[in-house]
Amino acid sequence: MKVSFTQAEVAAIVQPTRTEGSTTEVIRGIASLGSAQPGDITFLGNSKYKAAVAGTRATIILLPADYAGQPGPNQVFMVVDNPSAALARLCSRLERELWPRPRPGIHDSAVIAPDARVSTSATVGPLCVVEGGAVIGDHVHLQSAVFVGRGSVIGDDSWLMPGVVVQAECTLGRRVRLHPGVVIGSDGFGYELVAGRHEKVPQVGTVAVGDDVEIGANTTIDRSRFESTSIGEGTKIDNLVQVGHNVVIGKHCMICAQVGISGSVTIGHLTVGSGAMIAAKSGVKDDIPPKTSVWGSPSVPILLEQKLVILRNRLPELFKRVDALEKRVGKG
Amino acid sequence: MKVSFTQAEVAAIVQPTRTEGSTTEVIRGIASLGSAQPGDITFLGNSKYKAAVAGTRATIILLPADYAGQPGPNQVFMVVDNPSAALARLCSRLERELWPRPRPGIHDSAVIAPDARVSTSATVGPLCVVEGGAVIGDHVHLQSAVFVGRGSVIGDDSWLMPGVVVQAECTLGRRVRLHPGVVIGSDGFGYELVAGRHEKVPQVGTVAVGDDVEIGANTTIDRSRFESTSIGEGTKIDNLVQVGHNVVIGKHCMICAQVGISGSVTIGHLTVGSGAMIAAKSGVKDDIPPKTSVWGSPSVPILLEQKLVILRNRLPELFKRVDALEKRVGKG
Amino acid sequence: MKVSFTQAEVAAIVQPTRTEGSTTEVIRGIASLGSAQPGDITFLGNSKYKAAVAGTRATIILLPADYAGQPGPNQVFMVVDNPSAALARLCSRLERELWPRPRPGIHDSAVIAPDARVSTSATVGPLCVVEGGAVIGDHVHLQSAVFVGRGSVIGDDSWLMPGVVVQAECTLGRRVRLHPGVVIGSDGFGYELVAGRHEKVPQVGTVAVGDDVEIGANTTIDRSRFESTSIGEGTKIDNLVQVGHNVVIGKHCMICAQVGISGSVTIGHLTVGSGAMIAAKSGVKDDIPPKTSVWGSPSVPILLEQKLVILRNRLPELFKRVDALEKRVGKG
Repeated sequence: MKVSFTQAEVAAIVQPTRTEGSTTEVIRGIASLGSAQPGDITFLGNSKYKAAVAGTRATIILLPADYAGQPGPNQVFMVVDNPSAALARLCSRLERELWPRPRPGIHDSAVIAPDARVSTSATVGPLCVVEGGAVIGDHVHLQSAVFVGRGSVIGDDSWLMPGVVVQAECTLGRRVRLHPGVVIGSDGFGYELVAGRHEKVPQVGTVAVGDDVEIGANTTIDRSRFESTSIGEGTKIDNLVQVGHNVVIGKHCMICAQVGISGSVTIGHLTVGSGAMIAAKSGVKDDIPPKTSVWGSPSVPILLEQKLVILRNRLPELFKRVDALEKRVGKG
Repeated sequence: MKVSFTQAEVAAIVQPTRTEGSTTEVIRGIASLGSAQPGDITFLGNSKYKAAVAGTRATIILLPADYAGQPGPNQVFMVVDNPSAALARLCSRLERELWPRPRPGIHDSAVIAPDARVSTSATVGPLCVVEGGAVIGDHVHLQSAVFVGRGSVIGDDSWLMPGVVVQAECTLGRRVRLHPGVVIGSDGFGYELVAGRHEKVPQVGTVAVGDDVEIGANTTIDRSRFESTSIGEGTKIDNLVQVGHNVVIGKHCMICAQVGISGSVTIGHLTVGSGAMIAAKSGVKDDIPPKTSVWGSPSVPILLEQKLVILRNRLPELFKRVDALEKRVGKG
Repeated sequence: MKVSFTQAEVAAIVQPTRTEGSTTEVIRGIASLGSAQPGDITFLGNSKYKAAVAGTRATIILLPADYAGQPGPNQVFMVVDNPSAALARLCSRLERELWPRPRPGIHDSAVIAPDARVSTSATVGPLCVVEGGAVIGDHVHLQSAVFVGRGSVIGDDSWLMPGVVVQAECTLGRRVRLHPGVVIGSDGFGYELVAGRHEKVPQVGTVAVGDDVEIGANTTIDRSRFESTSIGEGTKIDNLVQVGHNVVIGKHCMICAQVGISGSVTIGHLTVGSGAMIAAKSGVKDDIPPKTSVWGSPSVPILLEQKLVILRNRLPELFKRVDALEKRVGKG
């Protein structure tokens, strides 16, 4: 990634409400306040790092309106409504260079079933497989070695990265982004114990992924026993997450890395309410109400888990205190 | 998946011991008691949902012998020995439509070493790689982009789904099912610290997977240092599980999602006894006796872990109680 | 793997300082003290298994200098400085047979962009994809179905196993080993909440992997928001590990299976100091000082976590003791 912006080009992108200082330096990199060098742009995204602004060697610093201070020589302060958002706009520009829009068309090495329907505006990269009856929407990008199983539907403007697997009869909405190695539609983990052997319970449901969902690398979403495992619109899932069969995740949830959400073992669904946040490495085995943040395994409300983590670390002290009490009053 | 069954067709599959009511409705879906609509079949799999039967809108309900109640108009109760098992038979029918038996043969795009042996009844899908000396048994299905390394053996009737990797010199039994992204035979994690650097301990053993084993998406099974990491007949492993080198797992175990089983760091094996159950997200670092259920990280017997989870959630109360005791009797 | 060594051949490899006994048996396998049979070689790697030496049926036993005892008939004791290291040398020999050096060249089925640079000494296996501007160094082995994205650089002598994905603009050092299914350069998990929706924060940084790094199967390393997520020279990472964006891992660290290292959510980096060890299943959300061992989720120093695990298991007892104290002195 080559970065190269003049002060004027940066200003055109971040639209500062006020600018102090000026520079002739060309901006060639983005860095944090502490590690920035001359030629870098940086930003104050969190007021707790305010003290680091005075010492930064960056050439341009994006600052909130309430920051008081003056730029050094050949340094520029650009005051913006939201420095993080302003930097994000700059990064969006870079993003378009990092991930240029691929040309529509099907690579010679891809294997497309005659009865699959691939939009003429879609890009099917090398070594992808699209099985019979599958539908690949407009402007979809199957990057490389993506597998789309029989009867599955990939919504418009979705991007499936290298090695993604969508098994048969699953549905993805529009603008879905699946990072490398994501598996959609593997079988739910369901068995009946019959005479000491685990007999497979067929998993003949499907997975339905809503619009604007993003799913991180090597995450797995199991198909349901019947009906659908479903991921609501706008929900974001991090890497190495496991979503079991029959789980219903609401809209605009955040699910951090290595979370596991158990499938329902009996009838019905496990439901994660819209707007819920599940912190990293949590194990979820019960419904989560909307707009709730949880953490831990098994997960509990995040404020409780934070307290429990602290108290657990104090167990050695607690045992000593109980020892001392028993010495004073006897063991009863 | 198109579902379409008449009442008579359902009866032929589930074999009810008694039927009450009748319907002319065609069954087009399977749903839970609560979400079923007219045209759906549902079932009472767990007596704790008994109260939901009276209110369900399903057209056919599979019920156990001890259920007391009458169907509504145009609704059918079918009494069966085991409603879950009866539904499973229905689902098995659907399963055969979801996963039709593939035609034998090797796809043009597959890369097969001249000295690999592939049964004429096997199906090798697009973009699979089978290296030299590998053996692909009768009726095996390598679905798509499966890698079978040098000298590995895939037993009859096994199904390896898209993106599965079996590294060199591993052995799979018959009727093994590997979900997308499973890795068999990656190196065990073994190093010796020599002068501040980690020097690799060669991992020249193998992995042996027994008959009727099913392994979930993106699970990893490391080859052993020497001898074999082994997974016993009939064992079922969920998604994103890690099995370290030299682990020996018995027969008919259940290992839920995101479990990690440590490899032995010294000589010998870590052994999971036959019939053991390891609950989701557990971390196993010691042997597990046969027919034992464990949970937690590090794992302990499941009943103990259930108790510990409850007591941990009560730590805030316990700290307050000890505070109060100290106030009464002094801190000693 | 066929193993076949005479006593003299073993001695030539392990270089014993002293040998007792002799055998005409050919060594055909490596096994642990307890499971070894005649024809096997074994070793005493940890003095706590000393008692097992007398009973082993192995033909050759590698022993430390301080072992007192005599071999049985047709049995050989070879005294070496470090039995584990001696066995490792033997295994290195086997390793060269298990993983023979592949012939340089590009497989016909690989898809290489015209402006990628692939060393003539590199091996690019079947169904690999190398995008434009990527550089594949000397003696690199892309085993099968490996994806190397635009502008990425793979250092000399590196080995990327089947199904590895290196997204655009990432850099790998020399002698890097990536096990099957590793994903390098997936997007960091960064969003801003705007009007109830999660708006993506572009992730335009990269991943830099140092020399001699080994990364386990299905592990994921996210690219940073800007600058680099970096993995220091000589660091070893096990299977199913998640490394978030902007994480900086030092040199010669050990990171065991299923660890998660959170990305920084604001400015700056999360830093894991050189020589640190992170035990299996840990969740890391704060910096780790150099040469520190941590465990747990959230992780704490390993000795503390070991103590906390024991004390947590004693919670039932502690609750009873507090009940008894309250009975004696009242609840306050």
